[in-house]
Amino acid sequence: MNNKQALYNEYTERMQKIADVNYSIAVLGWDKEVNLPTKGVRFRSRQLATLAGISHELFVDEKFGDLLQRLNDGNSLDKGQEKNVQLSLKDFNKTKKLSKEFVIKRSKLTSDAYHQWIKAKEANDFEIFKPALSSLIDLKREEADLIGYEDHPYDALMDEFETGAKTSELTVLFKDVREQLVAFVKELKEQPQVDNSFLHKFYGKDKQWDYGIDVLKNIGYDFEAGRQDISTHPFTTNFSPEDVRVTTRIDEQDFTNMVWSCIHEGGHALYEQGLPVDQYGLPLGTYTSLGIHESQSRLWENNVGRSKEFWKHNYPALQQAFPENLSNISLDKFYAAINRVEPNMIRTEADELHYHFHVLIRFELEKGLIEGSINIDNVKEMWNAKYKEYLGVDVPDDANGILQDIHWSHGSFGYFATYSLGSFYAAQFFHQAEQDIPGLRQEIEAGNNANLLKWLRTNIHQHGRHYTSQELCAKVTGEPLNFKYFMDYARKKFKGIY
Amino acid sequence: MNNKQALYNEYTERMQKIADVNYSIAVLGWDKEVNLPTKGVRFRSRQLATLAGISHELFVDEKFGDLLQRLNDGNSLDKGQEKNVQLSLKDFNKTKKLSKEFVIKRSKLTSDAYHQWIKAKEANDFEIFKPALSSLIDLKREEADLIGYEDHPYDALMDEFETGAKTSELTVLFKDVREQLVAFVKELKEQPQVDNSFLHKFYGKDKQWDYGIDVLKNIGYDFEAGRQDISTHPFTTNFSPEDVRVTTRIDEQDFTNMVWSCIHEGGHALYEQGLPVDQYGLPLGTYTSLGIHESQSRLWENNVGRSKEFWKHNYPALQQAFPENLSNISLDKFYAAINRVEPNMIRTEADELHYHFHVLIRFELEKGLIEGSINIDNVKEMWNAKYKEYLGVDVPDDANGILQDIHWSHGSFGYFATYSLGSFYAAQFFHQAEQDIPGLRQEIEAGNNANLLKWLRTNIHQHGRHYTSQELCAKVTGEPLNFKYFMDYARKKFKGIY
Repeated sequence: MNNKQALYNEYTERMQKIADVNYSIAVLGWDKEVNLPTKGVRFRSRQLATLAGISHELFVDEKFGDLLQRLNDGNSLDKGQEKNVQLSLKDFNKTKKLSKEFVIKRSKLTSDAYHQWIKAKEANDFEIFKPALSSLIDLKREEADLIGYEDHPYDALMDEFETGAKTSELTVLFKDVREQLVAFVKELKEQPQVDNSFLHKFYGKDKQWDYGIDVLKNIGYDFEAGRQDISTHPFTTNFSPEDVRVTTRIDEQDFTNMVWSCIHEGGHALYEQGLPVDQYGLPLGTYTSLGIHESQSRLWENNVGRSKEFWKHNYPALQQAFPENLSNISLDKFYAAINRVEPNMIRTEADELHYHFHVLIRFELEKGLIEGSINIDNVKEMWNAKYKEYLGVDVPDDANGILQDIHWSHGSFGYFATYSLGSFYAAQFFHQAEQDIPGLRQEIEAGNNANLLKWLRTNIHQHGRHYTSQELCAKVTGEPLNFKYFMDYARKKFKGIY
Repeated sequence: MNNKQALYNEYTERMQKIADVNYSIAVLGWDKEVNLPTKGVRFRSRQLATLAGISHELFVDEKFGDLLQRLNDGNSLDKGQEKNVQLSLKDFNKTKKLSKEFVIKRSKLTSDAYHQWIKAKEANDFEIFKPALSSLIDLKREEADLIGYEDHPYDALMDEFETGAKTSELTVLFKDVREQLVAFVKELKEQPQVDNSFLHKFYGKDKQWDYGIDVLKNIGYDFEAGRQDISTHPFTTNFSPEDVRVTTRIDEQDFTNMVWSCIHEGGHALYEQGLPVDQYGLPLGTYTSLGIHESQSRLWENNVGRSKEFWKHNYPALQQAFPENLSNISLDKFYAAINRVEPNMIRTEADELHYHFHVLIRFELEKGLIEGSINIDNVKEMWNAKYKEYLGVDVPDDANGILQDIHWSHGSFGYFATYSLGSFYAAQFFHQAEQDIPGLRQEIEAGNNANLLKWLRTNIHQHGRHYTSQELCAKVTGEPLNFKYFMDYARKKFKGIY
């Protein structure tokens, strides 16, 4: 073993040690959401904080920085090793740009903002949250300056979630969303509405649970490398590619909640279960970006999980489980109902099309707040006006309006766009998969999703963080992200329903 | 704040940081037993090992040792603070006596011995385990020498589990066990056996589960500071006094498994829930010794949970849950059945009296092996001969004989005795509680265990590790551990049944 390889092993060892601590944090976090008895919160919080501190110290260690520098001279490492070192060094340098004082200030401010947001939402009054939000925006501008950017301060913030995302490019993308999608949804509105009342009858808990497990198995989720549990908000977490857990929630008056949360989280989980296990703890062992992660959940949730082919296979079992609600409902009627398009105030309850208006609004407001073109005193009125303009709805109050999402209170600016990016990447990937797998739709119809999963594993999952989302998209589909694929998908699908 | 107090705060901070890591290990360990998907084992093991390494490094840090030395000069600290520092310094010095090389060797040997034990048990052949056991015994002798002892090398090993336990004193104690208990059990055997066949009918899983939860509530277990789950082997674990979890197992053909595991683990958990929360991470926030811990589980399991008073309150609900098995069984018949005395090969299935013969045999063999008076080539024959002599049973094979317990494979020599100490302390404590709480038995009969729990909280739990078990026993009962209390309890109880 040459000296360089010994250094690389030292690097790997440190990174995997950090991963062990981070995944332990994930276990404690999962347990907090799934199992924690009420009194357990206090000490769990300090245990989580201690582990986070240890993980941080292990990473920002100057000696580790030196090691990364020495490894980064580009010799005697193979391509994957080189990439790992480059990405770790990038992360290291980025972390170093934020002083300890800044990190403490940020932690204080976000913790405070979170509590103010809770209060404001309960009181249904944005004014309570506004001072904290205002401080957070100042902080985020400072953070952008510390991190640095070429064109736009918002670029620096988005980079945290979507490496290389550009405000200028997203501005163009969301212009397309605004123009094309608003017009298309208007067309659909002129058609008669589809009936979905039968989805909101009583669907018993235990049968829903069993059905959700079957659906997860159907899409290829490996229960030997994961499990499903119940939590207030569904989520996916992972402690290695060999232990990737999902949660769901069950509403006995709304069957759709559970099934599509299973498929959505299942899609995230399939990505994590498909990451290369030999890259544990290293950049190549982790996901590309939040946008690509979301593309995996949305591809399964919408492109597969709301397709007629998928339900051709899965609907009979559903009818059998709930004959009292569904025995007289045809597959066509069911398919239309689960794809019903209807404006709604709340992002998390939006349909596949309206969803992007919610993101669009947040993107426009965040961008304006960060660059200073929007004054915080006007942001609520702008929120309400945009909901009227794009969705045609009157926001009744702050809790259902500008206070609905937790993200800003966490200081997450630049996050929302990744939700839409996910759908758009999903459409483009699925289109490519159809080219590459002859008979893909017939396979799904037959309940066989194995080739699709294999395609995703080969083209996306196995690469980990080797490529940026833009690079990955070009590699897999031969072109950069193109909104056309989503619009084509939407037009074809919804014109068939409305 | 004076300088000494600032140092004490520094000490507290470090200890609580270590506790955070150790309790995180406990969360990962709990999850491993309760939830882990099969493929998750590999990375969970390395995550556990990494956290253990971090915890160890934080504790054995020389600077921390200096801090402890400076704090230990006996000035300006209050009594509790002084005690914490003394105990931490004792732990620190003990840890320092074992070199890093020795710890690595021990870890390697025990890991190897564990695998050999698994193999040997599967193959039902002690010869497979013998070489590893022999190496372990050499290692344990070396460990005893490194730690140091006054009278007997076995003292050094027992100290790990039962601070201050002396081989000489336990030799006297187990002589009493051998003479008095063997004779008493012989007397009982001359009486007609009681019927317990109805305990082994079909008891449905869900009803057993619900009943177990009710029993835990009845003894005072706080479900807001804990939860119960299912695992292969029942255990108690804690992440703070505000999150203490128990597990149980359910056998539909053997009702006794579940209920008494609930009460036994519940007893452990009540102790942990009663430890002083303001001493989190410090010696005074942890339990006295394994013997005292076991006294709490056994007091609830046997002195309370196998008493007629307890079942006078709890039996009607049990009959209601399982009328098909119990409606024709009187309380007296039930009470006799759950206290049936019968020799059995397997320690974990032993009744309240025979249990101590199992421990006695292990004590005699361990002591002999460590001091060198027993040769490893004879140990299996001695095991079988002692089972014949004390229990009157013929050991049919190694798997049900000398290979039945996991403890030796973990290198745990000096552990078994704490099980018996637990029962003997329990009898002495319960006798004292009866003196201190007039009408205690009537309270239990009425389903009210609150005063007993309060008594345990005040006299035992709140002290944490302030006293050794011997000191605690003298403080609570006015005298050292006295086997007489257990024999009196046993005679009174079992003469009433047989």
